[in-house]
Amino acid sequence: MVNAGNANITGKRVKIKAKGRIFEGIAMPSTTDSFVLKLNNGYNVGFFEYELLEVKDVKKMEETQELLKNPELPTVKIISTGGTIASKVDYNTGAVTSQFTAEEIVGDVPEVAEVCNIDATLLYNILSENMKVQHWKKLAREVYSALKDYEGVIITHGTDTMAYTASALAFMISTPKPVVLVGAQRSSDRPSSDAAMNLTCSAVTAISDLGEVVVVMHATTSDDYCYVHRGVKVRKCHTSRRDAFRSINFTPLGKIDYSTRQIEWFVKDRFKRGERELELRDKMEENCILIKFFPGLKPDILDYYYDRGYRGFVIEGTGLGHVSTDWIDTLRRICEDCVVVMTSQCLWGRVCDRVYDTGRYLLKAGVIEGEDMLPEVALVKLMWLLGNYDIEDAKKLVKENLVGEITKSTRYWEFEFE
Amino acid sequence: MVNAGNANITGKRVKIKAKGRIFEGIAMPSTTDSFVLKLNNGYNVGFFEYELLEVKDVKKMEETQELLKNPELPTVKIISTGGTIASKVDYNTGAVTSQFTAEEIVGDVPEVAEVCNIDATLLYNILSENMKVQHWKKLAREVYSALKDYEGVIITHGTDTMAYTASALAFMISTPKPVVLVGAQRSSDRPSSDAAMNLTCSAVTAISDLGEVVVVMHATTSDDYCYVHRGVKVRKCHTSRRDAFRSINFTPLGKIDYSTRQIEWFVKDRFKRGERELELRDKMEENCILIKFFPGLKPDILDYYYDRGYRGFVIEGTGLGHVSTDWIDTLRRICEDCVVVMTSQCLWGRVCDRVYDTGRYLLKAGVIEGEDMLPEVALVKLMWLLGNYDIEDAKKLVKENLVGEITKSTRYWEFEFE
Repeated sequence: MVNAGNANITGKRVKIKAKGRIFEGIAMPSTTDSFVLKLNNGYNVGFFEYELLEVKDVKKMEETQELLKNPELPTVKIISTGGTIASKVDYNTGAVTSQFTAEEIVGDVPEVAEVCNIDATLLYNILSENMKVQHWKKLAREVYSALKDYEGVIITHGTDTMAYTASALAFMISTPKPVVLVGAQRSSDRPSSDAAMNLTCSAVTAISDLGEVVVVMHATTSDDYCYVHRGVKVRKCHTSRRDAFRSINFTPLGKIDYSTRQIEWFVKDRFKRGERELELRDKMEENCILIKFFPGLKPDILDYYYDRGYRGFVIEGTGLGHVSTDWIDTLRRICEDCVVVMTSQCLWGRVCDRVYDTGRYLLKAGVIEGEDMLPEVALVKLMWLLGNYDIEDAKKLVKENLVGEITKSTRYWEFEFE
Repeated sequence: MVNAGNANITGKRVKIKAKGRIFEGIAMPSTTDSFVLKLNNGYNVGFFEYELLEVKDVKKMEETQELLKNPELPTVKIISTGGTIASKVDYNTGAVTSQFTAEEIVGDVPEVAEVCNIDATLLYNILSENMKVQHWKKLAREVYSALKDYEGVIITHGTDTMAYTASALAFMISTPKPVVLVGAQRSSDRPSSDAAMNLTCSAVTAISDLGEVVVVMHATTSDDYCYVHRGVKVRKCHTSRRDAFRSINFTPLGKIDYSTRQIEWFVKDRFKRGERELELRDKMEENCILIKFFPGLKPDILDYYYDRGYRGFVIEGTGLGHVSTDWIDTLRRICEDCVVVMTSQCLWGRVCDRVYDTGRYLLKAGVIEGEDMLPEVALVKLMWLLGNYDIEDAKKLVKENLVGEITKSTRYWEFEFE
């Protein structure tokens, strides 16, 4: 028997016998007396007594790639952009770093190789709060290019702005194949990491019969299944929980069982593989603004952005879509050559400005009801519309459902709010 | 038998016999062949055949007041500020109006008189999106004054900004008695109106052993019970549903059964009646701003408000509390003589800027973590702090729990998000 806490095999792939069973995984650094093994399922387990059966170096990138190729399986492209799913503890310094390439992620989650072959590209290595419109554009071109050759595309992404990027891609790329954004709330070294399950389920989604941009993340706090969220209907709703992502004003498109890798679809009228022609329209008008209204906020903020050339405004109003009536005059003036979309800070529910006086004045001023769109989605849509259409066409198109961002029927609404 | 659709008794209080039972209520206008009766429980019921037993004029305001006084019951003050709960259909024009005084509301919901006596004041008749800081101040003084003489205070309020007003009152008034904000998502003439149940449950709350500012609204889509939400932990989360109000990062304080009028408390460490001394501190610094961050938003918006003399900033960042790293320099500069609080657009969960590099840079720049406060609550708190303290004291107090707005323990967190 080897003594616990033995550190000279840290970072190696090992096979051990403990508690009468065989365990395989990567030996992790430990600050206690226990020996910590990162199992292939992503969990870290501590042992005080164990028998060391085998020690191997972790596979090199090329070997991993070679190993993964299986002629029976389709091949998926993974584009890595950074974020927690791409971070792990540096064994030398102990700090969390983002020096992890897509190939290494796959080396860490061998289950993915049972689902599909992988080609990987490291496009960015940034935290997602630093994503900007130019990043979306370059990413869209990379995804567009990959969609020509691969069965589907997976984008590993920081969770902070993943929903914004998902919306941007949904508008920029008409896709006949799955485009799957996936992230992790806890880095892959932590015992509670969600990286392995999320990545495996994203691979299952990437080879499915889907033809749209989706977000695949933990559905519950357990490692049981992931939800497939429509990219233009999803939102990060918790700062730290693994099940932080929620479909708003819509049901998730489906769920993926982690153990069986089976998909159960909830929504029949999702975009299917091959349904749309592959097309890229990557122009975006960056000068659009989202303003959250609160009691007492003065309308001069509209003038500030108008005077700087902004022509796209999304307002996150109260309730059914309201702002103070002292905003009406300014709104009427800017509506002449701007698109102003009203959404609700309630997030759930539909904007309807025909019920109360304030709303009717807003409509008369030229403000457009954002229907049941999330404020963030309305903003990204407006950036895309103003990049590709003139003001008048943008005004018409912003309230039309283009890629699933507006749900006319309310039959899916009740599901997630309960 | 009287023919259906008979309109000459519209607006009168009637007793009828139909379907073998006796019904009492107010005859409503009907556009169909049926005769519509508004029952005392708030529901409208249609009858095609009925026998008219009795017709009375609706009681005048003074008579209603006289009738309500019961020496056995405590007396509660209702302050009406407008909103849907104070609106009903004008029988002459058919339009929804807000010409309804608090006395008339009580006349419409006779169950309230079984709970407590009522004195009523019409303070405002405005839609709540038009509430401003000066309205909060005047309301706080009115509530403060009423708390001296009454068992509790009820404020009828539009739902759009009710949570903002609740927060403002929670900081401005140290109360030894219940201060209950109540509203309705559907006006009291509609068959699905939530006004009667919400008002009745608010009366039960107003005479309870509570000593804090709360919001009482429908807990579910049924007419079964209301939740008592802590005023600084609640948010309107749906544009139209009757159960739109949700406690975030906290459980509701309790629930009130509509049929039995019994309260069940969920939270032991709520403020109790008599626990705090009555005190009013109604100063507020209006020049505070809430900014919702999104990918690509430039930091010049901070300078715009700084240059106009604003010294209170609440940022609704991404995830654990992040903005783009190109904001850091501007933030460092304004943090020298401003209070900058970071909250999360996730809404659920706690801000923690010690996990990732961006967050650590923000903290070093002087940004203060908003803990688990809602962005709206952090904004109102900052207005109050800067109205009553200097910058340095405000910086210390903003991250301290003053009236229940910050929950240090996470034991209540999981409840509502599930």
